[in-house]
Amino acid sequence: MSAPVSAPRRLRLGMVGGGQGAFIGAVHRIAARLDDDWQLVAGAFSSDAERARASGAELRLDPARCYGDWQAMARAEAARPDGIDAVAIVTPNHLHVPVATAFIEAGIAVICDKPLAVSLDEARGLQRLARARRVPFALTHNYSAYPVIRAARAMVAAGEIGTLRLVQVEYAQDWLAEPLEAGGHKQAAWRTDPAQAGPAGCLGDIGTHAAQLAEFVSGQTPAQISAELHRFVPGRRVDDHVQVQLRYAGGARGLLWASQVATGEANHLRLRLYGSRAALHWDQEAPEQLWLNRLGEGSLCLRRGGHGWPESAAGLAGVTRTPAGHPEGYLEAFAQLYRDFAADLRDPQPSPRVPGLADGVRSLAFVETVLASTARDGAWTTLPD
Amino acid sequence: MSAPVSAPRRLRLGMVGGGQGAFIGAVHRIAARLDDDWQLVAGAFSSDAERARASGAELRLDPARCYGDWQAMARAEAARPDGIDAVAIVTPNHLHVPVATAFIEAGIAVICDKPLAVSLDEARGLQRLARARRVPFALTHNYSAYPVIRAARAMVAAGEIGTLRLVQVEYAQDWLAEPLEAGGHKQAAWRTDPAQAGPAGCLGDIGTHAAQLAEFVSGQTPAQISAELHRFVPGRRVDDHVQVQLRYAGGARGLLWASQVATGEANHLRLRLYGSRAALHWDQEAPEQLWLNRLGEGSLCLRRGGHGWPESAAGLAGVTRTPAGHPEGYLEAFAQLYRDFAADLRDPQPSPRVPGLADGVRSLAFVETVLASTARDGAWTTLPD
Amino acid sequence: MSAPVSAPRRLRLGMVGGGQGAFIGAVHRIAARLDDDWQLVAGAFSSDAERARASGAELRLDPARCYGDWQAMARAEAARPDGIDAVAIVTPNHLHVPVATAFIEAGIAVICDKPLAVSLDEARGLQRLARARRVPFALTHNYSAYPVIRAARAMVAAGEIGTLRLVQVEYAQDWLAEPLEAGGHKQAAWRTDPAQAGPAGCLGDIGTHAAQLAEFVSGQTPAQISAELHRFVPGRRVDDHVQVQLRYAGGARGLLWASQVATGEANHLRLRLYGSRAALHWDQEAPEQLWLNRLGEGSLCLRRGGHGWPESAAGLAGVTRTPAGHPEGYLEAFAQLYRDFAADLRDPQPSPRVPGLADGVRSLAFVETVLASTARDGAWTTLPD
Amino acid sequence: MSAPVSAPRRLRLGMVGGGQGAFIGAVHRIAARLDDDWQLVAGAFSSDAERARASGAELRLDPARCYGDWQAMARAEAARPDGIDAVAIVTPNHLHVPVATAFIEAGIAVICDKPLAVSLDEARGLQRLARARRVPFALTHNYSAYPVIRAARAMVAAGEIGTLRLVQVEYAQDWLAEPLEAGGHKQAAWRTDPAQAGPAGCLGDIGTHAAQLAEFVSGQTPAQISAELHRFVPGRRVDDHVQVQLRYAGGARGLLWASQVATGEANHLRLRLYGSRAALHWDQEAPEQLWLNRLGEGSLCLRRGGHGWPESAAGLAGVTRTPAGHPEGYLEAFAQLYRDFAADLRDPQPSPRVPGLADGVRSLAFVETVLASTARDGAWTTLPD
Repeated sequence: MSAPVSAPRRLRLGMVGGGQGAFIGAVHRIAARLDDDWQLVAGAFSSDAERARASGAELRLDPARCYGDWQAMARAEAARPDGIDAVAIVTPNHLHVPVATAFIEAGIAVICDKPLAVSLDEARGLQRLARARRVPFALTHNYSAYPVIRAARAMVAAGEIGTLRLVQVEYAQDWLAEPLEAGGHKQAAWRTDPAQAGPAGCLGDIGTHAAQLAEFVSGQTPAQISAELHRFVPGRRVDDHVQVQLRYAGGARGLLWASQVATGEANHLRLRLYGSRAALHWDQEAPEQLWLNRLGEGSLCLRRGGHGWPESAAGLAGVTRTPAGHPEGYLEAFAQLYRDFAADLRDPQPSPRVPGLADGVRSLAFVETVLASTARDGAWTTLPD
Repeated sequence: MSAPVSAPRRLRLGMVGGGQGAFIGAVHRIAARLDDDWQLVAGAFSSDAERARASGAELRLDPARCYGDWQAMARAEAARPDGIDAVAIVTPNHLHVPVATAFIEAGIAVICDKPLAVSLDEARGLQRLARARRVPFALTHNYSAYPVIRAARAMVAAGEIGTLRLVQVEYAQDWLAEPLEAGGHKQAAWRTDPAQAGPAGCLGDIGTHAAQLAEFVSGQTPAQISAELHRFVPGRRVDDHVQVQLRYAGGARGLLWASQVATGEANHLRLRLYGSRAALHWDQEAPEQLWLNRLGEGSLCLRRGGHGWPESAAGLAGVTRTPAGHPEGYLEAFAQLYRDFAADLRDPQPSPRVPGLADGVRSLAFVETVLASTARDGAWTTLPD
Repeated sequence: MSAPVSAPRRLRLGMVGGGQGAFIGAVHRIAARLDDDWQLVAGAFSSDAERARASGAELRLDPARCYGDWQAMARAEAARPDGIDAVAIVTPNHLHVPVATAFIEAGIAVICDKPLAVSLDEARGLQRLARARRVPFALTHNYSAYPVIRAARAMVAAGEIGTLRLVQVEYAQDWLAEPLEAGGHKQAAWRTDPAQAGPAGCLGDIGTHAAQLAEFVSGQTPAQISAELHRFVPGRRVDDHVQVQLRYAGGARGLLWASQVATGEANHLRLRLYGSRAALHWDQEAPEQLWLNRLGEGSLCLRRGGHGWPESAAGLAGVTRTPAGHPEGYLEAFAQLYRDFAADLRDPQPSPRVPGLADGVRSLAFVETVLASTARDGAWTTLPD
Repeated sequence: MSAPVSAPRRLRLGMVGGGQGAFIGAVHRIAARLDDDWQLVAGAFSSDAERARASGAELRLDPARCYGDWQAMARAEAARPDGIDAVAIVTPNHLHVPVATAFIEAGIAVICDKPLAVSLDEARGLQRLARARRVPFALTHNYSAYPVIRAARAMVAAGEIGTLRLVQVEYAQDWLAEPLEAGGHKQAAWRTDPAQAGPAGCLGDIGTHAAQLAEFVSGQTPAQISAELHRFVPGRRVDDHVQVQLRYAGGARGLLWASQVATGEANHLRLRLYGSRAALHWDQEAPEQLWLNRLGEGSLCLRRGGHGWPESAAGLAGVTRTPAGHPEGYLEAFAQLYRDFAADLRDPQPSPRVPGLADGVRSLAFVETVLASTARDGAWTTLPD
């Protein structure tokens, strides 16, 4: 009789950013914990040393591993025999590349919030570095981790919708409908500050999510775009609305819009792909459903974990934690990225399971092309390779 | 004791087009009949004399008033003491203006299907003529006649949504997803034939509905547009997809798209207006509901005939035939135009109750500006006054 | 060359009840007019002679055919060479049988609003009379005339859902949530007056609709019921809520409830049938959609006029006035009954196209069994044959 | 300067049941982990010693704390200075009371899956024991932990819907629509085996959830019920469908039904409460939304984490992990129970934060009254105190 096989050890996670009061840091921590593949053991939660220690204490971390700056953390963790396996970077955008650079140079894998960088150049530089050092890198485009979205991608790849004709993707929020940044709202303050968020506001924050989702599911990147950025709220320093026309090399057309002043919308990311044989519709606020509308048939509503999926998607639709009708959502999708990246670290693959630097670079290319087209009054502009 | 007051006599209606096998002609006839304000008494249903008579017989018309050509009909009806009060024009687009001209010159009021004309010049010429002859003219932009849409317009006008920021309007169909016109489908044949439909395909047929609806409810006409027309189906002679970016003088931005190749969509016209205080959402396929999403509140679903409407819309939401929960739809909205035009004829007003020539002219201005912008590779183009 | 074939003449319709201020009379008139098979030519709209004439004048009727009492109307119309082909009875319930009796005895076909009668005995008596005189009779169970409901019935009959297991039918309104009858509300007053409405309030008014719909689609009548009537509003003289458990001979179980105090509900009639192979769901407030949920598959949404219907229903789903996406509703369904009854009169069939006396008798059997079960504190009670 | 305040230590959790292949055990483990209040340290995962150790190894537990029987586990853990703070019982139903008894006698707090017991007597005995020993006890009625459900309960308690009139609660699944138990399906086998599941099948499994949810939100327990159990699948040993009429002391009426043969339904738990002033609607498969339909107003859709909640619910609607539009669901609600029970253990309250033995006893009283009413052919039967 053989001895029971133990699970692999939990991977050790560090975090930069995400101290008291932050939003996305807490999401990363829940996501890391949910499937029990990770254990948070170190952090540089704040550039203020006292706040960094206080955050660490709330998280029950060893005070010796609560760092006041991320450079020190990278060096110290790299030197420990029980050092972190990966660092989660959940700072404002402008720090993503500097922090990631420090950890990559220390040979530590990175899980980075999006957008990857504040410029395409910066993003490409990081990509070159990580390739040179062969350090694994995950970019948390969490919407691509919904099981139903992965099934949709597989279905498109298998030809289920025929030739792609139309892409309609939108991401509508209203939390910046008023000038919150003027009133000291912390999230609003850094996200509308070009020095921290980069030159793209709504475009960089959620426009990139929309672009990535459309690309992820359709398998196609636009060839050319015609864009219009706008600032609705007086005094705001970055765009709070973006709309973009899309042309694809295969002939498809599309529209993308994202707004943070869309009154009444919470976090409304929606994707519709129309092909010559069928259409797919998905709505992030009802993330367990995928509509498959085949030409000349009724509308078929497929559910995560449920029955009736086409052969091409059948496997993916089932890879979750609970059966159909037990709603899973945002945190579970985020957790999926952590689960997948743990698998990538334990079992490296040529095509990793999670989005990474190439996705980040394409996002920045999209951002800069939108900025360029806007600067040319919406002229159609070709995306860089 | 006074004698009972009789209802006013039914108005006498003639029809040009709409013979056997046509779609919209039958819709007009039901609409005219529904509220009992009109009586169909004459027609030129076909240019083939025998088919014209056969159509008339099916409709129980006096054979003497079933004409083989509309010129004769205009002359004869104008000469009769019991001649028609108005003519409904339900021919292919290229005949709208010639037929309307004949009846206007005969002094007969016109109810014309949209689009008004196949060119802006033609539309303006007709407008001048009708003004000169003081002949009433109704254009059947039927979607503007849904009670809920009229309530929405009143609400916007009363400031319910604050300053308009975003317009999202779309009209998606799939009936031309395949080359039906190559197989002898009558509707598809004329609607994709530039000689009959005009130079704009999908744009003229349903793009104009979308533009008119957005304008009707928002009370604003775009100042500039950047457009992209496309033909997805090989061999098709007109566009089957249009997408347009919109800029309004008041600072609002918007997107309009219309497609006849959007797989799985039947007749999906949707409007979303986002203002600084609230948003309004409407979907033609659930036409009895209006969503009012006020900033910082929940989503309020208001129903035709039901309770809870803001003061500004309360009256309009009630002006219908049945209480809330007794679904009314497309035919009732169409009937509303006929009811309203009957009221206009009996009680002329400076601002008539139904869309008319000015709306038709603006539609053609929109069409020609989309064509112009497309010809300039989507350059932002100012709409003519 | 042959002469064109004229349409058959319009049938001549009379109406009893439905004068100024009534609801259902106006619905019948629109329904009769919509498809142009009927022409209203006579009426006894009120027992008050002056109001009867005034109503007739509003409807442009010949004053000679506006009667002050229905007995006189039955005699006079039967004697005219151009007398009415059918009478629509839209009075309060207690007059249905007396009025219908007079017209049947005069040999005139009847279109009667539901419920047929105020007692089972009365209903059976009328049934015997109509059989003896061979007079056609239509009962306006309008919900059975929705195209999608007819398709559902055909699908069930063809075995699409397998063996019926569960019936869930409900009809929720809130218009009697408060004691309107105490404030002089005309509709509320007669509908809560046992002398006019009969002993069953909500049960007779809408409970019978729910029971008829479930029976119409499932093809099965309950064998036994266990019921609970309730009056929520103090001082009300009839029930305003009914709930019933159902047992069917074939083993199915079910629940029916109807309420006129269900806050926030307008006219919410919903049917769900669960079989061993599939389920069907329908909601009167979105009447163009039918959900077909097959065991082990996704949820399929089928639309009136659209594609994807099973073979068994394909024909029925298309028999309407407009294509999919052009919402039809309550008035169109009501009109269908008039269209069908016109066809029955022109082309009598052993199995007529519309519900009739047998349906009315079964409804009254249901009502009396609910009353009997309630009187026995909900004991299971067998329905009479 | 003060030292940072550490978080309280994680509570130590043991588990009985939930070995390889089980469903609900894994759910409990994720729930315990999600908010980082608990740490799984011991278990008796199987009565087969080898499988127990294998399950423990997969969960990275100390082999010394992986027990082959729960009696040994209770004794050993009670004796350890670092023994478990609570045990989660996730066995088949018939073991709930025996296992709980052992741990209560050892002074260890219990988190027990529902239903509490297989008989009312057994449940009451356990309740007496736990009271005598003053051991905290949580029953995982997870649906009561949805934030929106807690807000609904607060709203009802504050009088938001007025006097309760109607309760409509249903729980529909289809996973037992076919005789899975005959084919060796593990879940189906024990859940349809009276020796393991108890005498109530569907009734005990999900009927109790429905009853508890209705009671939790309405704040009222039925006074009398009239019930009908049924077995649709031939050869099944327990009921797979239950329907119940409800009478409340305050005059309300209601219907409850639960079915495991409702074709096409995954886990469809729905609650509708109609009061004299407003109605509340909730659907577990869209758990972030609550519909508030006030009499004479529109339908208001409120969202977890969003705006527009009445004063009475405003606090509760915000107590979650992510903002509105970031879907949370089943696992988060389950985690809430663990978070709340941790708070109860750290800060005991007279009215604990989670359902407990009193809820379990009332559930068994409901179950036995349904069985009794069914045995008397549905006679109205009073629930025991």
